[in-house]
Amino acid sequence: MTTPRRYTLTISCPDRAGIIAAVSGFIAQHGGFIVEASYHTEHEAQLFFMRQEILADSLPFDADEFRRRFAPLAQEFAMTWQLSDSAQKKRLVVLVSTQDHCLNDLLYRWRSGELQVDIPCVISNHEDLRSFVEWHDIPFIHVDTQGHKADAFEQVATLFEHHRGDCMVLARFMQVLPPALCQRFPGRIINIHHSFLPSFAGAKPYHQAYLRGVKLIGATCHYVTEELDDGPIIEQDTVRIDHGDSVDDLVRYGRDIEKSVLARGLRCHVEDRVLVCGNKTIVFR
Amino acid sequence: MTTPRRYTLTISCPDRAGIIAAVSGFIAQHGGFIVEASYHTEHEAQLFFMRQEILADSLPFDADEFRRRFAPLAQEFAMTWQLSDSAQKKRLVVLVSTQDHCLNDLLYRWRSGELQVDIPCVISNHEDLRSFVEWHDIPFIHVDTQGHKADAFEQVATLFEHHRGDCMVLARFMQVLPPALCQRFPGRIINIHHSFLPSFAGAKPYHQAYLRGVKLIGATCHYVTEELDDGPIIEQDTVRIDHGDSVDDLVRYGRDIEKSVLARGLRCHVEDRVLVCGNKTIVFR
Amino acid sequence: MTTPRRYTLTISCPDRAGIIAAVSGFIAQHGGFIVEASYHTEHEAQLFFMRQEILADSLPFDADEFRRRFAPLAQEFAMTWQLSDSAQKKRLVVLVSTQDHCLNDLLYRWRSGELQVDIPCVISNHEDLRSFVEWHDIPFIHVDTQGHKADAFEQVATLFEHHRGDCMVLARFMQVLPPALCQRFPGRIINIHHSFLPSFAGAKPYHQAYLRGVKLIGATCHYVTEELDDGPIIEQDTVRIDHGDSVDDLVRYGRDIEKSVLARGLRCHVEDRVLVCGNKTIVFR
Amino acid sequence: MTTPRRYTLTISCPDRAGIIAAVSGFIAQHGGFIVEASYHTEHEAQLFFMRQEILADSLPFDADEFRRRFAPLAQEFAMTWQLSDSAQKKRLVVLVSTQDHCLNDLLYRWRSGELQVDIPCVISNHEDLRSFVEWHDIPFIHVDTQGHKADAFEQVATLFEHHRGDCMVLARFMQVLPPALCQRFPGRIINIHHSFLPSFAGAKPYHQAYLRGVKLIGATCHYVTEELDDGPIIEQDTVRIDHGDSVDDLVRYGRDIEKSVLARGLRCHVEDRVLVCGNKTIVFR
Repeated sequence: MTTPRRYTLTISCPDRAGIIAAVSGFIAQHGGFIVEASYHTEHEAQLFFMRQEILADSLPFDADEFRRRFAPLAQEFAMTWQLSDSAQKKRLVVLVSTQDHCLNDLLYRWRSGELQVDIPCVISNHEDLRSFVEWHDIPFIHVDTQGHKADAFEQVATLFEHHRGDCMVLARFMQVLPPALCQRFPGRIINIHHSFLPSFAGAKPYHQAYLRGVKLIGATCHYVTEELDDGPIIEQDTVRIDHGDSVDDLVRYGRDIEKSVLARGLRCHVEDRVLVCGNKTIVFR
Repeated sequence: MTTPRRYTLTISCPDRAGIIAAVSGFIAQHGGFIVEASYHTEHEAQLFFMRQEILADSLPFDADEFRRRFAPLAQEFAMTWQLSDSAQKKRLVVLVSTQDHCLNDLLYRWRSGELQVDIPCVISNHEDLRSFVEWHDIPFIHVDTQGHKADAFEQVATLFEHHRGDCMVLARFMQVLPPALCQRFPGRIINIHHSFLPSFAGAKPYHQAYLRGVKLIGATCHYVTEELDDGPIIEQDTVRIDHGDSVDDLVRYGRDIEKSVLARGLRCHVEDRVLVCGNKTIVFR
Repeated sequence: MTTPRRYTLTISCPDRAGIIAAVSGFIAQHGGFIVEASYHTEHEAQLFFMRQEILADSLPFDADEFRRRFAPLAQEFAMTWQLSDSAQKKRLVVLVSTQDHCLNDLLYRWRSGELQVDIPCVISNHEDLRSFVEWHDIPFIHVDTQGHKADAFEQVATLFEHHRGDCMVLARFMQVLPPALCQRFPGRIINIHHSFLPSFAGAKPYHQAYLRGVKLIGATCHYVTEELDDGPIIEQDTVRIDHGDSVDDLVRYGRDIEKSVLARGLRCHVEDRVLVCGNKTIVFR
Repeated sequence: MTTPRRYTLTISCPDRAGIIAAVSGFIAQHGGFIVEASYHTEHEAQLFFMRQEILADSLPFDADEFRRRFAPLAQEFAMTWQLSDSAQKKRLVVLVSTQDHCLNDLLYRWRSGELQVDIPCVISNHEDLRSFVEWHDIPFIHVDTQGHKADAFEQVATLFEHHRGDCMVLARFMQVLPPALCQRFPGRIINIHHSFLPSFAGAKPYHQAYLRGVKLIGATCHYVTEELDDGPIIEQDTVRIDHGDSVDDLVRYGRDIEKSVLARGLRCHVEDRVLVCGNKTIVFR
């Protein structure tokens, strides 16, 4: 399961002919070996998106030199772009409250090596999950959200930056983030909502679903924006229920689907497979 | 695929101990052979629901005599109940506009014998589908909805009653039914809505779904009430889409899921498997 | 999530008219309140199966007295039957090797209270998972399978009986059980096989699936019999893969589906929802 | 739903650096606008596969001139390649027996414009479906397979060639094709098998599935080779069943899944999305 070191190049730019040729020409000219390549055009927005994985060892220079040499080309096509290096693991800061099914799932994927990230700390507004987190040798930091909210979330932001977090994961964190925090880290905060959005946004979605009598329930992994439960959707899934299921049954089925939807969405984010276009995402699998 | 003649007994009543014993005792006392039995309690409403299929030949009397003899027991338990006879096929009146994927699917299931119903007529506000319907030797009736709506729908109601319809199926009928019509046939009008309700009610749901950037789309089969797209849900399903899919692709995927959700929901209704409780359904499979 | 104490009565017997009436009559006569009831007839075998959950507090006697009083009726109908008491948790003995995804999942469901069982011990032929198991305060017992197999499995059987195990769960235990052990505990040993049986029985199913080029992979939870991977199937599921997935990707997707299929199958077994008929199962949900 | 005319270029060749650059460079150099591009490497076989859709109007020459100019590049990289033109519809010859659910589905998709193909004729070894086919103004040709098999299939091959068929679709055609016919049209004969292969190959798969007690059934769309039910798989899917379902129920569920799996597989084939590598397929969606 060890894969060779790779650079992942993600690009968005105005659509026109010749972009693939220019980029793949640049890579080929330096002997670069492309192991995965994906493209997409958003027709309404007239934007082009691409993602390429290149074997690091096939290139005669490192990531920084790649970035330097690629810059003129990027400028010519007015690209928004990024090159990441698989040797530099992303750093996830995880926020939880008292429910631990998503946390248990994430930490298992992390400790088994399936999820290739660093987790510098777990932040919580409760003490309940301290011993489980610390059993993994991960620092557990309690932040009190009972008192002054703005202060508490300023503390969260500071911790995130201090731990050089790349991504903040709300793993069933039962607090609404203040708009200022959402705006400060656009495309870097990921939430798992326990409904198939846009149905049942807000509080108690399983209860809402039960009352409406739907025949499937779902979960949604999305980027957090200042609009509650309205950010770009990364991944969703549904599961069948029936009239015999109580709200408690829905919550139980829901836990399984929340775990898997968050894990899949997060994996795509960590592998730079998710590009944002307005309020939608392109997810290159 | 010929199954022996059956009586299907469906009951709802206030929940208490002894209901199953009383009903199954009544059936057993007359030698009745139960081939399928299902039960459900709605705890909040304190209502009990049951459905039993009994071999007609195992009983020494016919359906009318069953009803007469069962009435006192039903009264004792304050039951809302019904006995249907598989030899009496339900009569479906189908309403369509110009889209024919659901109609094509329904008529195929009907002519292949999979859907055991009679279809006395198809009603449409367009002429487009006349030849296809008439190829099946089913009368095709055009009702003009361009002019006075109330008159048009009065005509629909009259046709439905004249053809002794048991159930009116809106197979992508692109007109909103007036409240009076909905109230006149409660639990007897079935619609297929092209979204996973309660998301994207109303017009152009695929367009709405595309704009929101959801990762699955769905369809919903429900009873029609005077609240648009808000009646009791019988069946739903979803299908995965991705960023590469246009609105046209969504419409195409949607056709397949609309067909199968309508067919499954309708089959349950026709077999008396659907019991309504407030705005929810119990569906005994 | 606390549910009131229940007795679960499961029955199989030759099919005839009047069984439901007799059983529900017996329960009603003592004031028993049925909260869930399911029935099934296997037509070829002419066998009838039923499962009833009765509120313990609604009856004027305890489980033992129920059994005494019910025995004559059971004899009259030639029933194979069993009454279990939700206050008596089933005891699961879990066998593992080195892969821990199913174990991690099971222990999480156990410690969160979702899976209402006792786990008296975990047995393994490797030492790898000792610290994780012991963190849960569950005894971890190493059994050496490198040497004399028959002795090792005699030791497993002795441990299972000594810990009064109700069910032995092979949670990715990478050893074939000897036929004698399988025959000793019929219907009490549950395995998770990492393919959609009957495809890809035996070793390395993901590798087999990869070579065959299937478009979905699956997992199967089944009772263990002396025929390898051929016992009665309790639960199965599949997940979509594509040409871009390596064997390692299949293994990764597979872990998720193995976990959920085992968890669902085991839950059904623990709740006495699974009745065996020849090499098939009836699973009352 | 009208899409602009496109050329679709599909390529397989030995893997090496620079292929994407060379091909996209060639296209860009002539102003070609790529609207969809997909790549895949088979690591074991060290083969590279690609598919590109190019807007026909963006190029200064036609398909033949494209082929002429592209040939030297193709030779340099030892490519197996093909350029198809969306203005040239593929010609499907459909073979059926008496079951018509797949035929009904295919002809609906064809007459609604969803499946962009020509159907020069339908061939059958029975007369049952003549009137339905002829209602579509498609010639229906009866071939007698009761007598000398080799002659009958020679006649089928001749008809296929005479009607300039691109693809032969076995839409529940209940005859095993002779090896000679399979070898004569490699990658051009598509079958729908009514099981999740490799489980339940051969006759009566639903009966086999019923006897084994599986919890899901499936269908498989695959290219026909001389090994029965063992050709490269294009598409598969499964559906959940339970103990209450008879063989007839399995057959009924199966019809729906056969229809959709065949339709999806066939669509991919028609759009040149399926590339064969040994006994596996790459399906670019």
